[in-house]
Amino acid sequence: MHNTTSSPVWKRKIHEIIYEADTPAGKWFDVILLVLIVISLILVMLESIPGLGEKYAFEFITAEWIVTIFFSIEYILRIISINKPTKYIFSFYGIIDFLSTIPLYLTFFFGGFSALLAVRSLRLLRVFRILKITRYIGEADKLSRAIKASGPKIAVFLFAVMVVSIIFGTLMYLVEGPEHGFDSIPKSIYWCIVTLTTVGFGDIAPETPLGQFLATLIMIMGYGIIAVPTGIVSAEYAQDLKKNNETNRSKESNYRHVNTQVCQNCLAKKHQDAAQFCHKCGYPLHD
Amino acid sequence: MHNTTSSPVWKRKIHEIIYEADTPAGKWFDVILLVLIVISLILVMLESIPGLGEKYAFEFITAEWIVTIFFSIEYILRIISINKPTKYIFSFYGIIDFLSTIPLYLTFFFGGFSALLAVRSLRLLRVFRILKITRYIGEADKLSRAIKASGPKIAVFLFAVMVVSIIFGTLMYLVEGPEHGFDSIPKSIYWCIVTLTTVGFGDIAPETPLGQFLATLIMIMGYGIIAVPTGIVSAEYAQDLKKNNETNRSKESNYRHVNTQVCQNCLAKKHQDAAQFCHKCGYPLHD
Amino acid sequence: MHNTTSSPVWKRKIHEIIYEADTPAGKWFDVILLVLIVISLILVMLESIPGLGEKYAFEFITAEWIVTIFFSIEYILRIISINKPTKYIFSFYGIIDFLSTIPLYLTFFFGGFSALLAVRSLRLLRVFRILKITRYIGEADKLSRAIKASGPKIAVFLFAVMVVSIIFGTLMYLVEGPEHGFDSIPKSIYWCIVTLTTVGFGDIAPETPLGQFLATLIMIMGYGIIAVPTGIVSAEYAQDLKKNNETNRSKESNYRHVNTQVCQNCLAKKHQDAAQFCHKCGYPLHD
Amino acid sequence: MHNTTSSPVWKRKIHEIIYEADTPAGKWFDVILLVLIVISLILVMLESIPGLGEKYAFEFITAEWIVTIFFSIEYILRIISINKPTKYIFSFYGIIDFLSTIPLYLTFFFGGFSALLAVRSLRLLRVFRILKITRYIGEADKLSRAIKASGPKIAVFLFAVMVVSIIFGTLMYLVEGPEHGFDSIPKSIYWCIVTLTTVGFGDIAPETPLGQFLATLIMIMGYGIIAVPTGIVSAEYAQDLKKNNETNRSKESNYRHVNTQVCQNCLAKKHQDAAQFCHKCGYPLHD
Repeated sequence: MHNTTSSPVWKRKIHEIIYEADTPAGKWFDVILLVLIVISLILVMLESIPGLGEKYAFEFITAEWIVTIFFSIEYILRIISINKPTKYIFSFYGIIDFLSTIPLYLTFFFGGFSALLAVRSLRLLRVFRILKITRYIGEADKLSRAIKASGPKIAVFLFAVMVVSIIFGTLMYLVEGPEHGFDSIPKSIYWCIVTLTTVGFGDIAPETPLGQFLATLIMIMGYGIIAVPTGIVSAEYAQDLKKNNETNRSKESNYRHVNTQVCQNCLAKKHQDAAQFCHKCGYPLHD
Repeated sequence: MHNTTSSPVWKRKIHEIIYEADTPAGKWFDVILLVLIVISLILVMLESIPGLGEKYAFEFITAEWIVTIFFSIEYILRIISINKPTKYIFSFYGIIDFLSTIPLYLTFFFGGFSALLAVRSLRLLRVFRILKITRYIGEADKLSRAIKASGPKIAVFLFAVMVVSIIFGTLMYLVEGPEHGFDSIPKSIYWCIVTLTTVGFGDIAPETPLGQFLATLIMIMGYGIIAVPTGIVSAEYAQDLKKNNETNRSKESNYRHVNTQVCQNCLAKKHQDAAQFCHKCGYPLHD
Repeated sequence: MHNTTSSPVWKRKIHEIIYEADTPAGKWFDVILLVLIVISLILVMLESIPGLGEKYAFEFITAEWIVTIFFSIEYILRIISINKPTKYIFSFYGIIDFLSTIPLYLTFFFGGFSALLAVRSLRLLRVFRILKITRYIGEADKLSRAIKASGPKIAVFLFAVMVVSIIFGTLMYLVEGPEHGFDSIPKSIYWCIVTLTTVGFGDIAPETPLGQFLATLIMIMGYGIIAVPTGIVSAEYAQDLKKNNETNRSKESNYRHVNTQVCQNCLAKKHQDAAQFCHKCGYPLHD
Repeated sequence: MHNTTSSPVWKRKIHEIIYEADTPAGKWFDVILLVLIVISLILVMLESIPGLGEKYAFEFITAEWIVTIFFSIEYILRIISINKPTKYIFSFYGIIDFLSTIPLYLTFFFGGFSALLAVRSLRLLRVFRILKITRYIGEADKLSRAIKASGPKIAVFLFAVMVVSIIFGTLMYLVEGPEHGFDSIPKSIYWCIVTLTTVGFGDIAPETPLGQFLATLIMIMGYGIIAVPTGIVSAEYAQDLKKNNETNRSKESNYRHVNTQVCQNCLAKKHQDAAQFCHKCGYPLHD
């Protein structure tokens, strides 16, 4: 137990509302933020529709300023409510928050770049932070564990896909040639991946019998290949499920990291439910 | 055991024929209903074929009236044969029955809306009620259980798909732009989902090298992603299968809800095979 | 042990060569037959290529006559070498053999129907009879068992696919209408299945925003749905694999039906390796 | 322990650098080679882009000569640094190395064949030799084992796919005919595989109602069929995973072939970590 002087009450309150979700105020804050993010994303999308952007230019810019100002306030509050602001500023979400707030100011001072405004789509990623509070945490965890466990296998597999695409792409370029849409080797490789993944746009399609025969080979390979990652994830996931069942029966499984407690000092997460001090820096936690 | 006065014999008979399927009359009723639904669906489809609808207008309208009158009579009988008609009227199937019977009357009195007539396609859903009697109940049950069990996982997964689509959709809009068919961000997102799900219509296709490179990334991701829900359902289903095997060996599994008994009073289902009274309201059941 | 008079030696020899594959002559017969079938299939295909059919008309007709005469002789030998010819004539393969031999005679006597000649493609099915002798019997068996075991589940599933297609097909017809290629409800349903199965030809594609939104729903459903049959077959197959492993360890598994012995009297198969008499009609078997 | 006279030190050194990867020099050699291969592949691709090849003809030819000369030197060193050069020359990688080095010399002496230059894409295969040193060996091994184990099943399955394609291809040819793009039976079969594998280019699409109905059948079959190989690989892989877990617990699993030691005499691999002599020819190994 460290002997640190705790931060003032107002700072603690803000920290609790913004970073955690176990008080009514904290929950409301998250819901409002979620609604604002969704609204702002819909605005970005609607603005891109031809005709609409120009017609309602004033409405769009007004709504955008309201959202941006709210996000700016939130960003500042996030910085001042923790003890080591740099911890937040240079964290993944800190950068996302900054990038999704700044574009409007930049276009205001330096003129409008549409590309810059599209950066606002990154706001979507902020949704993930909020969704941490839901009951889906456990599931998302399991899923990402299954994917991680099969990572190297999938890498090997994707590498094989690349090799097949490059070799067959070159072959198709030689067989079909620019007169049937296979303009260059990179474009042939693009077509090969389109075919191997069973997407099949049809913007380029083989026209010579030999090209169609090669295409047939690629498709059947793609058909067989699709089985591999599925089989891997499936088996991996089944094992995870089994292990989980076994662990659940044992005693150690009673403890799960599903509270939203965040240390005010170092932003560490996954504290035990009854924890009174941060398990990483020893700073006192408040419920 | 409640002490209720049982309903008159004719009411009981109609209830047995319409709602249940363990008497010859009940089975015949179901078969005729099934045939009528299928015929009426085929009529709706044929009517929509250009040229055919106008040419045989009289035949179509006549056949439609015959089907509609039969369905109207069935609807009325369903209402009068149970003790609490509102239980049926506001149930899922009650509403479906009403919606799939009323359009013709409305177009007769208020003039024809083709959109209204298409509502008749909802009759298809009535098929499900009849198919309850088949041996597929058990299988459908198992399937829906497996899907339900993997519900949250699939939700997490679909959410991830949405996020990928929105981010890559915005990117493709910036890279390809309206001149290659990526008119707006929503349309780009639509294209992104078309690609990620490996459908690949080809109505929109990237034409710049960078756009094609991004498309390649999306496709390979879609290829890897398709493995996840498959793996989940597969593992979940395997576990269900295993559990079922274990249960089947134990004694409690001797009882299965596969009879078609329906309480005349409250429409409750899944009565035990030897049940004499409704397990929900105590009303007497008759075989 | 029945006391039947065995058939003459020449009949026995022919039976052994044509129906079985455990003598050198029998194996050679099968190989020649296989080659002839493949050649004749290639001929049918080449003949259909525009220009080629007319140019080499004489060569094609000559080759076709040679193949047909060989098949005719084989057909007659099959009939005379067994005791009850009707057993063969009305069996599945008997009908296939007849249908794939007769077209040329019919076109010779009654003039050429190209549709009739395409019936010769059925010869392909004869390949299956010959492939019985390979080591793939066991695997094909396992596969078909896994598919059969998941039959009802897949039926339930396909029914669900049909329902989704009909409902969304009707919706798309109302939303997009004939001006965007959705000419009639059946065509809309066709498009819906094309999309749901992730094939996506792109010959018809939604153009209105609402239609594209509905298409997105269909695709994501198709994406999730594809997981179901895969999961089922996978789990079913895994169980089969496990059961097999357990059985293999026990004693009863020492016996497998992989010889090609066929009873000359009743065409029964799957005799035990050391069997001397048919297990179905008691007729003597000869090695 | 054989009593062989060891080769001179310079030869040993070169062998160690080129064939192995456990010394710093050996690792650097592999990295440089990998970079050169990747660069040369990118050159081949860029050269094929219309306009680019002609514009920077001089730069491309210069870069190509540099790469080719490096590869030539490497090829010669590989030959002289082992005791039995023919072992390398006629090995798989020996032939690949030769084929991917020679084209430039041939075009230099005998004039340019573009097809010949595309052979340089084979350099890609050389990447595999280098990647042997990575931690992915184990995973690739497991994967290829799972695929091998399900080989016969997948063969049976692919054969079934072929049969379905030929029969439905012939049917579609008869139903749709050359006027809707189904020019010949081989092209119809090509279309059938495009559809069955859910690729769906859309360059050919059925237009008659009957053709569209048949296409629907093919697609639903493809949808169901895709489940089979996935299920097989999945189950097979799950078993492999299980077996591995069991083996890992036992003692024999402590030994793994992941070092890059290669015998200088006979190019044998997979030596034990502490091995002093080749397990195949007895020639001394040096660390």
